[in-house]
Amino acid sequence: MKVDGKPTRTLWPVAGGHAVEIIDQRRLPHEFVTVTLATAEEAARAIAEMWVRGAPLIGATAAYGVALAMLKDPTDAGLKAARALLIETRPTAINLRWALDEMAAALSPLAPAKRAEAAFARAAAICDEDVAINSAIGDHGLKLFREAWGRKGQGKDERDRLNVLTHCNAGWLATVDWGTAIAPIYKAFDAGLPIHVWVDETRPRNQGASLTAWELSRHGVPHTVIVDNAGGHLMQHGRVDLCIVGTDRVTATGDVCNKIGTYLKALAAKDNGVPFYVALPSPTVDWTVRDGLKDIPIEERDGAEVTHIAGRNRQGKTESVLVTPEGSPAANPAFDVTPARLVTALITERGVCEASEKGLKGLFPGQG
Amino acid sequence: MKVDGKPTRTLWPVAGGHAVEIIDQRRLPHEFVTVTLATAEEAARAIAEMWVRGAPLIGATAAYGVALAMLKDPTDAGLKAARALLIETRPTAINLRWALDEMAAALSPLAPAKRAEAAFARAAAICDEDVAINSAIGDHGLKLFREAWGRKGQGKDERDRLNVLTHCNAGWLATVDWGTAIAPIYKAFDAGLPIHVWVDETRPRNQGASLTAWELSRHGVPHTVIVDNAGGHLMQHGRVDLCIVGTDRVTATGDVCNKIGTYLKALAAKDNGVPFYVALPSPTVDWTVRDGLKDIPIEERDGAEVTHIAGRNRQGKTESVLVTPEGSPAANPAFDVTPARLVTALITERGVCEASEKGLKGLFPGQG
Repeated sequence: MKVDGKPTRTLWPVAGGHAVEIIDQRRLPHEFVTVTLATAEEAARAIAEMWVRGAPLIGATAAYGVALAMLKDPTDAGLKAARALLIETRPTAINLRWALDEMAAALSPLAPAKRAEAAFARAAAICDEDVAINSAIGDHGLKLFREAWGRKGQGKDERDRLNVLTHCNAGWLATVDWGTAIAPIYKAFDAGLPIHVWVDETRPRNQGASLTAWELSRHGVPHTVIVDNAGGHLMQHGRVDLCIVGTDRVTATGDVCNKIGTYLKALAAKDNGVPFYVALPSPTVDWTVRDGLKDIPIEERDGAEVTHIAGRNRQGKTESVLVTPEGSPAANPAFDVTPARLVTALITERGVCEASEKGLKGLFPGQG
Repeated sequence: MKVDGKPTRTLWPVAGGHAVEIIDQRRLPHEFVTVTLATAEEAARAIAEMWVRGAPLIGATAAYGVALAMLKDPTDAGLKAARALLIETRPTAINLRWALDEMAAALSPLAPAKRAEAAFARAAAICDEDVAINSAIGDHGLKLFREAWGRKGQGKDERDRLNVLTHCNAGWLATVDWGTAIAPIYKAFDAGLPIHVWVDETRPRNQGASLTAWELSRHGVPHTVIVDNAGGHLMQHGRVDLCIVGTDRVTATGDVCNKIGTYLKALAAKDNGVPFYVALPSPTVDWTVRDGLKDIPIEERDGAEVTHIAGRNRQGKTESVLVTPEGSPAANPAFDVTPARLVTALITERGVCEASEKGLKGLFPGQG
């Protein structure tokens, strides 16, 4: 999407295709800094240290990591070593494994001399496929947004704009471009719909306050940051027309695992008759899992993410401050599961469906 | 309650009854600093600048402010001036007005020479009344806690303790002693119930992370700080046995206005069959209001409370950091309303009742 008017992806080839440039997302929202990755080791570091994050972007960066490795050592041993290096960076990311498998399948049959060129081509194709999937999600979501706008009485207060609430960052920064949940927002904004986004700050890591607010502001989309506590109140007072979030994993029955706090917003949406949509590329569906609450393990992260908050101090430097009493423990479950009964619909690259086994199988008949 | 073993209130007379000492709550949780107030002007500043906060504590401090004024000028003019000075400090606090009215009623009939002594006595009585009310709330709540503990199967995981979730700070720091929602927690802890408290950090002002966590840790009550997003997930997994919160205003029909985010926790409690209790001294009931959602105005506070977070930096200094992109706006509704249908029961100094007109009138038959 655009950064101050200039179309930008989260990574792009440079140096005549012999390197790839990324945004160092750790520096957002206060600084926009790009970094050139010229070796597989640099790509691995960028993933492991979260200069890039978001499942699709991790996969794309790993694909380029393999391509960079092929410049140095295109032998079978080199290919194997690159995979071993990159798979260790974020062991639980499904897209990472998928991208590395894709690269291996494309390169293994080729003579070593042909691998580097083919690797950059396959990495570029993986990026373009991601963009196409997200753009399709955006188009399908846009139809729902237009319907919501059509239903809405226009008039006083905030009724002259379409108010969308989102949680965490499922925007272009988490993908190669467009994002998942934010894709329909960009499509709507670009189409001239008078859209406004309530951005949950998304404690503890504040991906909403830092990443979603940044990418919306750089593209020019009207938005307002709120604390995670505020969404229910806004829905009670008719100030939210629909909610849309991304997801880390959807069960075969439509349960949605996403950033901690998503469930609370889905409850409030249900209680107030506000549609609650979940946007996802189809590889996010885990066809092997039926009961999200019982069967999806929830990562417990370091309590320091709760007790300390990073931001920019008055001197313009990034600083971490302690917000709890010395010695008070903190718990930090990173995700929660929203039962399918609270989800109005799933938005995929193939179209919109009910959050249920029937709905998902209707769009993806060969699966499950 | 206790601060590292020493019984402590939020204010107490010193200097032979000619001054009053308070805790400078702005310095919590990182420093425990007390300040002596020797004049009405100092008392007014302590209230206006939020060295003290919480409706009952504001009232008690204002009462002592009047007493301090009487030391200097016990005439009718002096009494009037003290009231005028103190009423301006937090114009919307109901307890402030009530305490000043109490002091005027007690002092006006007296000869000026007798006013100072009578004023300190009435201020002390107001404090003791607050302590008695909160202690009674604690006793009534304790019965519910014991019942919850009795119902609970004991065994693996966290089932060998009573897990209570609370939001914001309704502890002794907001009152003279005991607190409202936290009073039953202290009673249970002191009675030997194996209690553990999930403390919502309570963005944006973090009263949970700073004040509730501090007072529980100083008294020795086991607790864990969580982000406001986490409570729903914990309830889904049986890790919360009951919720208890305070309130700023309860309607005649049992709707509960409290810190923003309370409604989301009440929804999650209902969805998971977790009891949701609200503790209140009876003056918190607004008998003139019937529909909390329609008729209670919600304060919109400065967006800077959302965009900036204060804490202790590595050098041990308190510092405020910016967590949003420069220029992204923030909205900051300070309270929300939890409909009575989501509240399991109200806990007052007179006992426990249903959150309804019938329930409230049963305990307070003369009202409404």
